[in-house]
Amino acid sequence: MMARSNYRLPKIPEMTIRRLSVYTRCLLQLEEDGVRTVSSQELAERFNLNSAQVRKDLAYFGEFGVRGIGYYVAGLKAELQRILGLDREWAVALVGFGNLGSALFHYKGFSRQGFRIAVVIDDDPAKAGRDVDSVPIVSSRDMARELKTRGIQVAIVAVPVESAQAVTDQLVAAGIKAVLNFAPTRLRVGREVRLKNVDLSIELETLSFYLAKGGR
Amino acid sequence: MMARSNYRLPKIPEMTIRRLSVYTRCLLQLEEDGVRTVSSQELAERFNLNSAQVRKDLAYFGEFGVRGIGYYVAGLKAELQRILGLDREWAVALVGFGNLGSALFHYKGFSRQGFRIAVVIDDDPAKAGRDVDSVPIVSSRDMARELKTRGIQVAIVAVPVESAQAVTDQLVAAGIKAVLNFAPTRLRVGREVRLKNVDLSIELETLSFYLAKGGR
Repeated sequence: MMARSNYRLPKIPEMTIRRLSVYTRCLLQLEEDGVRTVSSQELAERFNLNSAQVRKDLAYFGEFGVRGIGYYVAGLKAELQRILGLDREWAVALVGFGNLGSALFHYKGFSRQGFRIAVVIDDDPAKAGRDVDSVPIVSSRDMARELKTRGIQVAIVAVPVESAQAVTDQLVAAGIKAVLNFAPTRLRVGREVRLKNVDLSIELETLSFYLAKGGR
Repeated sequence: MMARSNYRLPKIPEMTIRRLSVYTRCLLQLEEDGVRTVSSQELAERFNLNSAQVRKDLAYFGEFGVRGIGYYVAGLKAELQRILGLDREWAVALVGFGNLGSALFHYKGFSRQGFRIAVVIDDDPAKAGRDVDSVPIVSSRDMARELKTRGIQVAIVAVPVESAQAVTDQLVAAGIKAVLNFAPTRLRVGREVRLKNVDLSIELETLSFYLAKGGR
């Protein structure tokens, strides 16, 4: 596949974006290991990827490989981080501070990739008005003001199923542009908002596939 | 692509398995909506998938489509559930009952797909020896016995990074065949064990891609 011109990106499959995240992690690992260049073949073998898929995914964004050398690890990593918007910090609102919300608040993977939880929203009177690790917990009444003041465009929804749609409507009305939803329900948002549902059971299903196969 | 013979499956990309989970959910939705047959094209349009990819993924497992009709929704769903090992119940051990462990314990998505948490393992003396919703919490000292008695092959690791490897070694020694790891660290397991790492920040990264693109 030819590299495509950059001024108008074609519609990029979400799975491609997802894989760019994976490639970025692989390149970080290679960089830590002192590897300076890598071919798509080597990348595929080491991380159990598909080399044709790697080349196809990258081709959406330009020509990164150098003939006879492969990819420069540091350069490709930086380029993918730029494409993924990881060359900056994103302030994030976390909605819901129950078990899941607390777990996500303390999840180290987010901050490592540039996502900083800047405000927590929870209506529990025992929580709202307090701080957690210097991050304010506010009630949903103050949500719109807080999001605007802090320039927050991304929200993580970690509330029970029953309140997920209502809280999402409030977030959208307050100008949120992207929602990461952990409540196991289908949310409705307008076309101007990116919604991503996290379904944790999908991960278990890939495991049961291998177990079921092994058992036959 | 031709359907391949069934007696020896080719190496199936993990992304294909992951997408089978997604297709199963789409088919469940169609079934609820009373749709009886669907073409790969309709499936792709309705759920924002790639129709060539759908056909290619399914072709690993046989010929499911009927010329001029497409797929029978109920039949394809049942077939995919069988392939994914979702036509039976899997007893699961949950290791770690802190914030994340509690959240996962109450996560409704697991049981809906046939994963039943049958035992919780936590060494906190305030927790071990008690029950949660009729599920026993035991200390890791009793782990091996509990896993064997209950015939558990799958474990979810939701402990802090520092103890994740040690607990995984114990699980593997006790005969666990598949581990779903939520601790943001790389675990080492032998080749006989399937390990799946859940990296929650990947989900946020697909969102930041779209935000970054929109902002330019």
